[in-house]
Amino acid sequence: MAARTIGILHPGQMGVSIAANAKNGGCRVLWASDGRGEETTGRAEKAGLKDVRTIARLCAECDVILSVCPPHAAEDVADSVVSAGFTGTFVDANAIAPERSRRIAEKLKSAGVAFVDGGIIGGPAWKPGTVLYLSGPAADDVASCFGDGPLEVVALGDEIGRASALKMCFAAYTKGTTALLSAILATADRLGVRDDLNAQWKRGDPSFPGQTENRVRNVTAKAWRFAGEMEEIAATFRSAGLPGEFHDAAAEVYRRTARFKDAPETPTLAEVLAALGRRAD
Amino acid sequence: MAARTIGILHPGQMGVSIAANAKNGGCRVLWASDGRGEETTGRAEKAGLKDVRTIARLCAECDVILSVCPPHAAEDVADSVVSAGFTGTFVDANAIAPERSRRIAEKLKSAGVAFVDGGIIGGPAWKPGTVLYLSGPAADDVASCFGDGPLEVVALGDEIGRASALKMCFAAYTKGTTALLSAILATADRLGVRDDLNAQWKRGDPSFPGQTENRVRNVTAKAWRFAGEMEEIAATFRSAGLPGEFHDAAAEVYRRTARFKDAPETPTLAEVLAALGRRAD
Repeated sequence: MAARTIGILHPGQMGVSIAANAKNGGCRVLWASDGRGEETTGRAEKAGLKDVRTIARLCAECDVILSVCPPHAAEDVADSVVSAGFTGTFVDANAIAPERSRRIAEKLKSAGVAFVDGGIIGGPAWKPGTVLYLSGPAADDVASCFGDGPLEVVALGDEIGRASALKMCFAAYTKGTTALLSAILATADRLGVRDDLNAQWKRGDPSFPGQTENRVRNVTAKAWRFAGEMEEIAATFRSAGLPGEFHDAAAEVYRRTARFKDAPETPTLAEVLAALGRRAD
Repeated sequence: MAARTIGILHPGQMGVSIAANAKNGGCRVLWASDGRGEETTGRAEKAGLKDVRTIARLCAECDVILSVCPPHAAEDVADSVVSAGFTGTFVDANAIAPERSRRIAEKLKSAGVAFVDGGIIGGPAWKPGTVLYLSGPAADDVASCFGDGPLEVVALGDEIGRASALKMCFAAYTKGTTALLSAILATADRLGVRDDLNAQWKRGDPSFPGQTENRVRNVTAKAWRFAGEMEEIAATFRSAGLPGEFHDAAAEVYRRTARFKDAPETPTLAEVLAALGRRAD
């Protein structure tokens, strides 16, 4: 098979690592710097991605375009390739509900764009442990763009929505429980029983209070984009007839801590608990 | 200190174990069989509790009365000792929100009854690992009724509500995550990705899928009383300014599986998932 040309929209920390894996797999990998900041440019250059400046040129040159962005931006990013006249294969690898993925697929299909549903589980794919799940008729074709790792690529068959459903169900627990623990610590603190709770937790697992504090503090850097992901998970649960309120609450927890985006240092627990006690603006 | 007389309302599996610990501590322990079933009678007799038949007589003979019942019954049980003219110390050891505990305390105080707030963490106290937390002005006095174990009794000071707050915060995670996992498995099943989710979970911890299935199946026997407990936790979070929706959802999960109360056998996972997919009647 001839080497393919892949475009990445817009290379954040996760996206650039996925792009680097496609490069390892023998693809030409392009990106478009127009309107992007210094940090993104630095990341893309470091990974050896070729800058074609505009989305129009990216769409003209690429066989496959990957979208890796915060969930709330997924539809706009998809729209941008339609507007630019793309006619290749578009991969949405974002943490969105399967129904939203199918809606984007329909829109792209009517514009002549093939669609592959994707979901990434794990951190930036510079070392083994991260999986890109793909589903849809062109899933195997897209999977073949990637090399032997460190990113693992798993095709889940023809049905658009499966990759997103898996991602939603997996993140429902990991990010859902971090949000729940955040709310528990804030409640215990407000009610004056946080030390007692930690003492009780220690009876079961001496490391639990420390691990919990770290989870609750460290997640704040990503809270600004997890709020949207929790809303997608709530929609996913509801589409399956299950209650979405777990993740409505998780979204509210992350909205309240979204202010810590770009904080120069990880906030103290006291700072996080204070933010959790206030409604988001 | 002279041996005290303690009454237990109404000895379920947890209550009878708490009563047996008070007996080990040198107390006379009474219960009232009027209106109770064979199973309760069998449990009380086996534990050597003395049956005084009526709540009126229990109230007349006891220095301390313990209430251990499902959360939705807590206020009625407290009312029953007021109606019977009790004037000793009433211990509510139930999984209720601190605000509800304070409300019961006020009502009892105006009827001349001293109130101690309690919360039990752990299973029936036949072996070490279960803690009865107590708070309120008479907490130390009640704590002194118990012997050296297996039940551990911890007094948390004078403030009514602290023991309940601790219980709520602790159960928020244990029972909250079991409900969340139930909803996740049901969602994954409905969306056709349950096997994929288990495979992904196995990457992190090979025992996780099996443990999760066991949690989700085994909790169904207690779901009928956990629904009320989740509502109390939701109220507790809201009283602290945090979102209560995590446990609104958990309550709905347990309402949907409440039908498995008294099931002759633990239901299969398929039976649990089918129940989770339907709204409670």
